[in-house]
Amino acid sequence: MNPSELIKKKRNNLSLTKDELKFIIEGYMSGEVADYQMSSFLMAVYFRGMSDEETYHLTDIMLNSGVVLDLGSLQMSKIDKHSTGGVGDKTSLILAPLVACEGIAVPMISGRGLGHTGGTLDKLESIPGFNVNVSIDEFRRLLAKNGVVLAGQTKDFAPADKRIYSLRDVTATVECIPLITSSIMSKKLAEGADGFVFDVKIGCGANLPGIELPIELAKKLIYTSRKSGKKAIAVLSDMEQPLGRKIGNWLEVEESIELMSGTMIPDLFKLTTILAGAMIFLGGKSGSMEEGEKIAVSRLMDKSAYRKFLEIVESQSGDLNYVKDWTKMRRSSIGRSMIAQSDGFLSDLKADDIGFAAIDLGCGRKRIEDKIDPLAGIILHSKIGDEVKKGDTLMEIFADANEKLDKAEERLNKAIRVTREKPPERKLIIDILD
Amino acid sequence: MNPSELIKKKRNNLSLTKDELKFIIEGYMSGEVADYQMSSFLMAVYFRGMSDEETYHLTDIMLNSGVVLDLGSLQMSKIDKHSTGGVGDKTSLILAPLVACEGIAVPMISGRGLGHTGGTLDKLESIPGFNVNVSIDEFRRLLAKNGVVLAGQTKDFAPADKRIYSLRDVTATVECIPLITSSIMSKKLAEGADGFVFDVKIGCGANLPGIELPIELAKKLIYTSRKSGKKAIAVLSDMEQPLGRKIGNWLEVEESIELMSGTMIPDLFKLTTILAGAMIFLGGKSGSMEEGEKIAVSRLMDKSAYRKFLEIVESQSGDLNYVKDWTKMRRSSIGRSMIAQSDGFLSDLKADDIGFAAIDLGCGRKRIEDKIDPLAGIILHSKIGDEVKKGDTLMEIFADANEKLDKAEERLNKAIRVTREKPPERKLIIDILD
Repeated sequence: MNPSELIKKKRNNLSLTKDELKFIIEGYMSGEVADYQMSSFLMAVYFRGMSDEETYHLTDIMLNSGVVLDLGSLQMSKIDKHSTGGVGDKTSLILAPLVACEGIAVPMISGRGLGHTGGTLDKLESIPGFNVNVSIDEFRRLLAKNGVVLAGQTKDFAPADKRIYSLRDVTATVECIPLITSSIMSKKLAEGADGFVFDVKIGCGANLPGIELPIELAKKLIYTSRKSGKKAIAVLSDMEQPLGRKIGNWLEVEESIELMSGTMIPDLFKLTTILAGAMIFLGGKSGSMEEGEKIAVSRLMDKSAYRKFLEIVESQSGDLNYVKDWTKMRRSSIGRSMIAQSDGFLSDLKADDIGFAAIDLGCGRKRIEDKIDPLAGIILHSKIGDEVKKGDTLMEIFADANEKLDKAEERLNKAIRVTREKPPERKLIIDILD
Repeated sequence: MNPSELIKKKRNNLSLTKDELKFIIEGYMSGEVADYQMSSFLMAVYFRGMSDEETYHLTDIMLNSGVVLDLGSLQMSKIDKHSTGGVGDKTSLILAPLVACEGIAVPMISGRGLGHTGGTLDKLESIPGFNVNVSIDEFRRLLAKNGVVLAGQTKDFAPADKRIYSLRDVTATVECIPLITSSIMSKKLAEGADGFVFDVKIGCGANLPGIELPIELAKKLIYTSRKSGKKAIAVLSDMEQPLGRKIGNWLEVEESIELMSGTMIPDLFKLTTILAGAMIFLGGKSGSMEEGEKIAVSRLMDKSAYRKFLEIVESQSGDLNYVKDWTKMRRSSIGRSMIAQSDGFLSDLKADDIGFAAIDLGCGRKRIEDKIDPLAGIILHSKIGDEVKKGDTLMEIFADANEKLDKAEERLNKAIRVTREKPPERKLIIDILD
């Protein structure tokens, strides 16, 4: 085999065998396949795609480039959730303790903020002391003790994905379903879970445009999971506007605690309980997703999810009093309000622009070395479809410098639109694939 | 500008501006654009193509990455020919002296054998002493003295093309019309000619498959030439079977001399005089291509082309007696005949297989370090459409070892087909674009 022949084969729209894919990936890791060959291969895959079979093989090869956790000694179902990334999406913070309450282990490995979307790790680190850098042994120990752990990616999992992802990032080959699938799945499968619930976002704030690509991704994630012997359900959810009312690292922890303490935040509540219901069903603790959803609702209502959350914070060295004092309204030093300029209905609240504005405010990084402001962010006073009057506060924004607020404000003005007509109602749960 | 944004732009099927292309090419030469970015860009170009405008800009940028000869001081038209590469195609050896006879300068820069096709430089070097490694100053001097020079590519011309071509070779991005166009044109334009005749091959022995791609290439070559202020004509010619009857380095020099000495070799004679006619017309020495063709025929007949050829050999240090003694039938040590197995008509004489068989015999290189056998090769006794009888010699093959003959013979058996029915007549000149 020779790298340029295999690139040509993919370029000419022929399928690659498992051995051929292995030659490319292992060759890349050993240096036999040069990075300029890998990048032209990736671009050929961008244009030609990959069959389900090829995607599965690629995933399996990348998975086996590193450590694969064996959680077989843990005598309980192990279910994780993966979101394709949204704005204001703090469901992981609630789902992990909520599902763990039911005696299902949640080995949750999360990421940092990427592009305009937030990252669970950055949110957790807004709690002083919270440690997400957990060794594999510590990961096992915490999972056995609490039935749940919230941790960052270890470099031992799927190192081939790490190298290939870095290359995709600088060669315009990120937006490609089979490559996204194998990147997600190779890391997820390394966690040792028995099943996965995928939250695939659709809308301007999603990482994939349109509706067809997200659906294709959802199908490939399910196929690859099942082919790997895992259970899987995909929920397709709306990401045209942010989820919930708060965006920003501590603000999202705060809103999660609000929900777990009994405050009703309709869309966040709905999506969280749907995803929890699917996890509980996959974990064998309910006969259906609907039944699982009902269990999830009661675990939120009786505050057991909140108590479990405090347990996680304590176990992972987070400042418990900081969390318990969540009503203190911690915000960055400067606040500003965005005001409605006319009467009407809020028709646009574009999640992508709002996500980028949050980065302007200091919630995320433009460069790896940027420092995050944990208390910066956005509080939405209205959501799409709400009636507004001229002079109403549409949102509040917080940052530690006026220039940041100026920049965010400029962007937010493009994200918002008030119209005379009430916009058509949006569906939060677009579809469920199981 | 940032490399991955520009790759993405091309990937998304948008045109790049001249400045953007400049950023990529100059960035590649300076190291700002990494090779893995260049290769993914090239693959995106493979799939998305390039407009005529983009192709012209790319050519111009690559041209200006190196030395551009100014032959303005030479008070005559300067016309060159470029062939996309064929098997048994020795027209350059005849055209250069033939056209120079008419007072048109021919600054001919040629290449080595590539894939299954032969290279003019390797053929010239079968003449003992012939020197193709000419400095730029020597190139000017010879051109002024003889009106013609046959030389190899200098590294001073279009260095960006050289680097990009090497990368294309190992990343499956060779077969791409705009990239082929800019590669050919950036080197040709550096020669300082006023006009070009392109011989674009069609058929199994051509470098591009089918008929549409070669036509597209011909059009892009003409567009780019004219946009660069040069005159251009493209001849589309058949390369389903080899041109002429001899394949191999010295064998092709020998056949060229035969033609220039009065032997009629129909297809070689026709294509050579057509191409020469186009060159003479572009050089302003005839009112039409047809008239140019007539002049070319007479220059062959009266042997002035042959005398000019001897002048070139002498000027470039070739052994004149070796050439004059061309009737000596110099061949490699071992010869073998391929015999017709049945009566009928020769229907296939596949140029690509024959080209590869010639390499097996020692006429070309499989690896850069391989040594060429100047006297190896193939002599065709029949061509497509000829009637053959069982037992007739179809071709003779020559090499310096039996294993080479065995290997070539095996391949040649696939190249030949004898049928009962006479095959439809082939058209040598498929089209002329001017």
